[in-house]
Amino acid sequence: MKKKNLAIIGYGGMGGWHAINARKSDVVELHGIYDINPAQYDVRPMRDCEIKYSCLDDVLNDPDVDLVTIAVPNDCHKEITIKSLEHGKAVICEKPVALNSEELEEMIAASERTGSLFTVHQNRRWDTDILCVKDYCVEKESLGKIISVESRVHGSHGIPGDWRKEKAHGGGMVLDWGVHLIDQALFAFPGNVTSVYARMDHIKNDEVDDGCHIVMTFESGVVYTVEVGTCNYINLPRFYVRGESGTAQIDLWNNDTMNVTVMKIEEDHDVTPVKVQTGISKTMAPRTKETIESLIVPFPESDVHDFYRNVCRAMDGKETQLITHPQLRRVMKIMEASFESAEKNEVIHGIF
Amino acid sequence: MKKKNLAIIGYGGMGGWHAINARKSDVVELHGIYDINPAQYDVRPMRDCEIKYSCLDDVLNDPDVDLVTIAVPNDCHKEITIKSLEHGKAVICEKPVALNSEELEEMIAASERTGSLFTVHQNRRWDTDILCVKDYCVEKESLGKIISVESRVHGSHGIPGDWRKEKAHGGGMVLDWGVHLIDQALFAFPGNVTSVYARMDHIKNDEVDDGCHIVMTFESGVVYTVEVGTCNYINLPRFYVRGESGTAQIDLWNNDTMNVTVMKIEEDHDVTPVKVQTGISKTMAPRTKETIESLIVPFPESDVHDFYRNVCRAMDGKETQLITHPQLRRVMKIMEASFESAEKNEVIHGIF
Repeated sequence: MKKKNLAIIGYGGMGGWHAINARKSDVVELHGIYDINPAQYDVRPMRDCEIKYSCLDDVLNDPDVDLVTIAVPNDCHKEITIKSLEHGKAVICEKPVALNSEELEEMIAASERTGSLFTVHQNRRWDTDILCVKDYCVEKESLGKIISVESRVHGSHGIPGDWRKEKAHGGGMVLDWGVHLIDQALFAFPGNVTSVYARMDHIKNDEVDDGCHIVMTFESGVVYTVEVGTCNYINLPRFYVRGESGTAQIDLWNNDTMNVTVMKIEEDHDVTPVKVQTGISKTMAPRTKETIESLIVPFPESDVHDFYRNVCRAMDGKETQLITHPQLRRVMKIMEASFESAEKNEVIHGIF
Repeated sequence: MKKKNLAIIGYGGMGGWHAINARKSDVVELHGIYDINPAQYDVRPMRDCEIKYSCLDDVLNDPDVDLVTIAVPNDCHKEITIKSLEHGKAVICEKPVALNSEELEEMIAASERTGSLFTVHQNRRWDTDILCVKDYCVEKESLGKIISVESRVHGSHGIPGDWRKEKAHGGGMVLDWGVHLIDQALFAFPGNVTSVYARMDHIKNDEVDDGCHIVMTFESGVVYTVEVGTCNYINLPRFYVRGESGTAQIDLWNNDTMNVTVMKIEEDHDVTPVKVQTGISKTMAPRTKETIESLIVPFPESDVHDFYRNVCRAMDGKETQLITHPQLRRVMKIMEASFESAEKNEVIHGIF
């Protein structure tokens, strides 16, 4: 398959990431980059980089460009995506795809109208931690029936000092990391979500959330919590999964392994109280060692280049795109329900 | 002060605990014990124990008994408490004080009518972990303004194999451990709670909750979560406290110290993205070591005998009782709101 010519629109942190990966890709050729601020070309110099466009129209009118990756602030996604689709380019948009469902529907409609591929860089489906949870806990059911999943990312910087602090640009943590964690949840559990409960932090920012805690209840009964913190000086685990016969935990940014403890022998006799802190408890008595087993589960392999490989094959009609429009709609609806839930301090019911 | 004569009604696990502590007390004399099942006297033999009563009336008609501690299954608390108060005995009731607010109001009314002291053994206000959180985080404000507290106890036995499995006896984890954790929350944060959101586990028990997750939002903005798990094979921390300028964490059943990380220097410059898992992130970039400080904070001292000391001094009118009727009402209302919240999957609003 001939490599597709890629142009990157927006040459900030993520634009740079796409450029670096494109140079290593077996399916795309980095054809050119464009940033509204040419100083960015100096911030991230790319030797022998092909074309540095001087305006968006030059990108879109370049007949050699097959595919554009849009990595601009979130409030500009819609306009540039639609314009690119109308110029016959396939589009990869950075996440969050849009600021709300209305914008997203316009973007999907443009893709359907033009017949050009439109997808979103939900790259964290390739994170090996979620792949391990999906494989070991969900698909292999190694912990028995899943009760709950807690998926957290914790930092302590507040919101980085750029447009992510501002509502007009689509800032805030729901749209930054929440979108990833929700997408991962639906990736691991494809069934319907029937309610959403959410709280937002406004610790150093009144305008946008600088942290969020979102609880999705699935029709299956699984309770999946996603949490983003930017004022957490000590980290809770990246993943904490409870099954009926075991628990799994992944430390934050561990890249290799998941800790698991599973029950080997049911203990049905009564329990002798133990002293815990200044009192006694039966409920909190520890299990005997013979009845449980602790394991270290290695993460599966993953290759982020599979994202671009899928996009390119989908452009040629050889595969369906992995990150689909219905999936984008679901994630967006859950983010909107989260904002509504936090605003009203109510549980939002529906089919998501 | 002459020691008060104590009779213990109900000689199971907690009755035994009270007996052992009474033998070491400087304010009460273990005068006698009573259990409906005399075999209990053999399960927990107490050498030279004074009187083993053969029926409840014998306890209550014994003029030498000043004070009774009631440690029977939860559904029997009300009747025995009221009867004891009517016989002129001061009453310490085990937690949860009653199955619902109606029962509690009858008990409080009996105390007011008879003039006999009535309180509840909320002994976990003497746990040194909550005392450390209260002292260091709440009172000294060492983490800055408090954002949230997460208070968890995790076990993996399910519900112990006795009456705690049955609804009729007041079983379930809200009434077992939830009551302690809610009482601790109100002990550390005396202000109003304005909403309650709760979920319950029914993993191995349809009749009563075998785990609960309760979120109390205080008028001050503090979000306080309490969680009881009985199917958690790996434990999350006992306490996790976020303040605006630091985080504190106490491992489950650590009896000595709290881990704290606080911010020393605000970092307001933009952040360079770091690789986390298979992608990059600005938000999750770690802080530079110079801007934070990690500390180990020792727990304060505590003496569980202070509970009985207070009760005895309150009986003599020399102190007010520490565990008050309004406090009992608040904890009960929050437990009731939790059941309602979980049943309806709704946030319950009110002033608690």
